[in-house]
Amino acid sequence: MLLNKEDIEGLENRYRGLFINALSGMKAAHLIGTCDGHEHSNLAIFTSVFHIGSHPPLLGMISRPHSVARHTLENILETKHYSINHVNESIYQQAHQTSARYDRSTSEFQAVGLSEQWIEDFPAPFVEQSRVQLGMELREHQHLAINNTDMIIGEIIHINIKDDIVSDDGYVAVGRAESVMVSSLDTYHSCDLLSRLSYAKPGAAAQLAEKADSSLKK
Amino acid sequence: MLLNKEDIEGLENRYRGLFINALSGMKAAHLIGTCDGHEHSNLAIFTSVFHIGSHPPLLGMISRPHSVARHTLENILETKHYSINHVNESIYQQAHQTSARYDRSTSEFQAVGLSEQWIEDFPAPFVEQSRVQLGMELREHQHLAINNTDMIIGEIIHINIKDDIVSDDGYVAVGRAESVMVSSLDTYHSCDLLSRLSYAKPGAAAQLAEKADSSLKK
Repeated sequence: MLLNKEDIEGLENRYRGLFINALSGMKAAHLIGTCDGHEHSNLAIFTSVFHIGSHPPLLGMISRPHSVARHTLENILETKHYSINHVNESIYQQAHQTSARYDRSTSEFQAVGLSEQWIEDFPAPFVEQSRVQLGMELREHQHLAINNTDMIIGEIIHINIKDDIVSDDGYVAVGRAESVMVSSLDTYHSCDLLSRLSYAKPGAAAQLAEKADSSLKK
Repeated sequence: MLLNKEDIEGLENRYRGLFINALSGMKAAHLIGTCDGHEHSNLAIFTSVFHIGSHPPLLGMISRPHSVARHTLENILETKHYSINHVNESIYQQAHQTSARYDRSTSEFQAVGLSEQWIEDFPAPFVEQSRVQLGMELREHQHLAINNTDMIIGEIIHINIKDDIVSDDGYVAVGRAESVMVSSLDTYHSCDLLSRLSYAKPGAAAQLAEKADSSLKK
């Protein structure tokens, strides 16, 4: 299938949504937990969280103009904090269900059957069922005029992660946490290890390193 | 494993790199093809391509300050064009090898054994071995002062994708293209379909829709 700019512009709207959303490849699924100033919690699935840097530890995400996720954006701007929780195979159907257009007074936690987990001095709820929980502090908010979306950049200030998926050198076996991936808007996938490769140097062909799992704590 | 802000700041550098890079979850792997004004082609693996919107079709990516990927950034700013090519299971080792610090006069295509594919009126090379090839036009470039990285936003103006992975409604079976995912810096994964879910509505529990594969063209 070969499309030029004109062909792309001519795509039917629903087709376009499914098609273009698939082109960036698989996307990790995250549940974003927030709270407004009146203790109404909110939970929304995002597939646009991306790594910006590790020192300081920064993650970005995109909030779309029309979506229910606006509640998330408003809460983040109000409290300057949010949680990012990996979606795993046990909870991906509930996670998907958070994308329904609940009204503002409804907590998606309750509506979809996930549990709030709170820690001291952090004004946003985590998802108890998630195996990788990140507490985020807002660092930057940018409106992207090019298509009326918003980019949020946050710093990771709290990490709660299952010990048995972290290896001695810092590698995290995200696959072992059964974190799921989304292609397009609605199709969920699990991941299987292919291999861990060694640091690439000019002149040397990439060599298969030991399987990542072998370096994990038993 | 529970870390607060102080713990995170105290992480040893190499550990931090592997650890923090894993926290955003699995990342799709892409090869970015560029060319400078003197017909020197360049190819670099990126794991930070993210979806910004489908109308217009926009993808973002992050270029890091220290990396060899600066050649990619310089070429994009010079020619205003680049290609994004999905990395699949057959070529992920070559793709990883593009991250070696080759000098500027070396084409990574040649160095790692991938083939350039050119189309008319597009000033950047595609990767022939990739099953999802996107031709991009630069729309926005932002320096992110927060950590000295650069964000590139491009519009998809050319799509070349294998017919047999596109279903009638526009869904693309990225998993069938054997596109690979990276966790942390160096660990590659394949994806397996869990299920395609129906559009979420309040009041209805998420229901498993037919397996995505069943809606694919035979």
